[in-house]
Amino acid sequence: MRAYPRPLARLIEELEKLPGIGPKSAQRLALHLLHASMEDTTALAETIREVKEKIGTCPRCFNYAEGDLCGLCVEAGRDEDLLCVVGDARDLMAMERAGGYRGRYHVLQGLISPMDGIGPDSLRIAELVERTREVGFREVILATNPTVEGDATAMYVAGLLKPLGVKVTRIALGLPVGGDLDYADAVTISRSVEGRREM
Amino acid sequence: MRAYPRPLARLIEELEKLPGIGPKSAQRLALHLLHASMEDTTALAETIREVKEKIGTCPRCFNYAEGDLCGLCVEAGRDEDLLCVVGDARDLMAMERAGGYRGRYHVLQGLISPMDGIGPDSLRIAELVERTREVGFREVILATNPTVEGDATAMYVAGLLKPLGVKVTRIALGLPVGGDLDYADAVTISRSVEGRREM
Repeated sequence: MRAYPRPLARLIEELEKLPGIGPKSAQRLALHLLHASMEDTTALAETIREVKEKIGTCPRCFNYAEGDLCGLCVEAGRDEDLLCVVGDARDLMAMERAGGYRGRYHVLQGLISPMDGIGPDSLRIAELVERTREVGFREVILATNPTVEGDATAMYVAGLLKPLGVKVTRIALGLPVGGDLDYADAVTISRSVEGRREM
Repeated sequence: MRAYPRPLARLIEELEKLPGIGPKSAQRLALHLLHASMEDTTALAETIREVKEKIGTCPRCFNYAEGDLCGLCVEAGRDEDLLCVVGDARDLMAMERAGGYRGRYHVLQGLISPMDGIGPDSLRIAELVERTREVGFREVILATNPTVEGDATAMYVAGLLKPLGVKVTRIALGLPVGGDLDYADAVTISRSVEGRREM
């Protein structure tokens, strides 16, 4: 790699460390940044620094927050008696993008995964139990991903919340909208039949 | 997009401006940067700044350079009488990665493309002619891409260099190594037959 001068080679190396960025993309990004306006690159470098400095965790729901409580915890007009439990902030964003849900959230900051050494104590489950005890939600919707880890986490959490007398639900499994029975996997089809509803 | 606090949303926006980075990748990169060590993000921000400050253009071959001449122009043991002309620094890198070529380079910084308003005067062609006149290369290899723009540029450059009495060659067109006749396009096959060599 003699052909690129050192600072450029170093930038390519730094970019290659990012997830989903291979050598080709790193090279393209580095050359783009080299040719971009000073204004744009400064903005990028600044926002990276700002994110590290200003973004913390919401002490109530454990979503990302700037300052104290996150935007969703302070937003007025949301149903205070309804809680949606998600694995991470990305899942929360997906729920918000979908719209429709207007209650509060709780971010577990991960899913139980013994293979990766993540047990219940690594997650915000104790805080969820405490919060549920305090607020006394009408319903807690477990919206962790329908994966082995997500299901295990939901089972575990449900076991802790039910004794508190709260209604605990799990998001529905079935065919995606616009899906095709012929292309769906057997497990999804079985779940979709199990979860059938009267019309 | 209420769910992400402002600095995070801003970083996602900045990342989306980069080539090949869509909304999903930008989100993933931003969250990665948020969770990365302060050391790593500082290194990234620093290298971006450094590249903008330190990288210039080699006054001889117009490759990227740190300081004055680029690493390839000052590298000892290269054939001074052989010149390879490429469209941009990425093509130069590809040649270097392939190995085998041990002469000097000249980077045109683009290809003739009337559709994009790029004429010969926008490129480093005058400098190439001047350099060829001064050095008197044994051979100039035109290694611009085998595209409409690359071919046009090679034709144009050859027309200027031949009158100087220098041998001008074009890289071979044909089937890629490991290729399959059945999958090759007709033009490539024709060129590969035209360019056949005695065994």
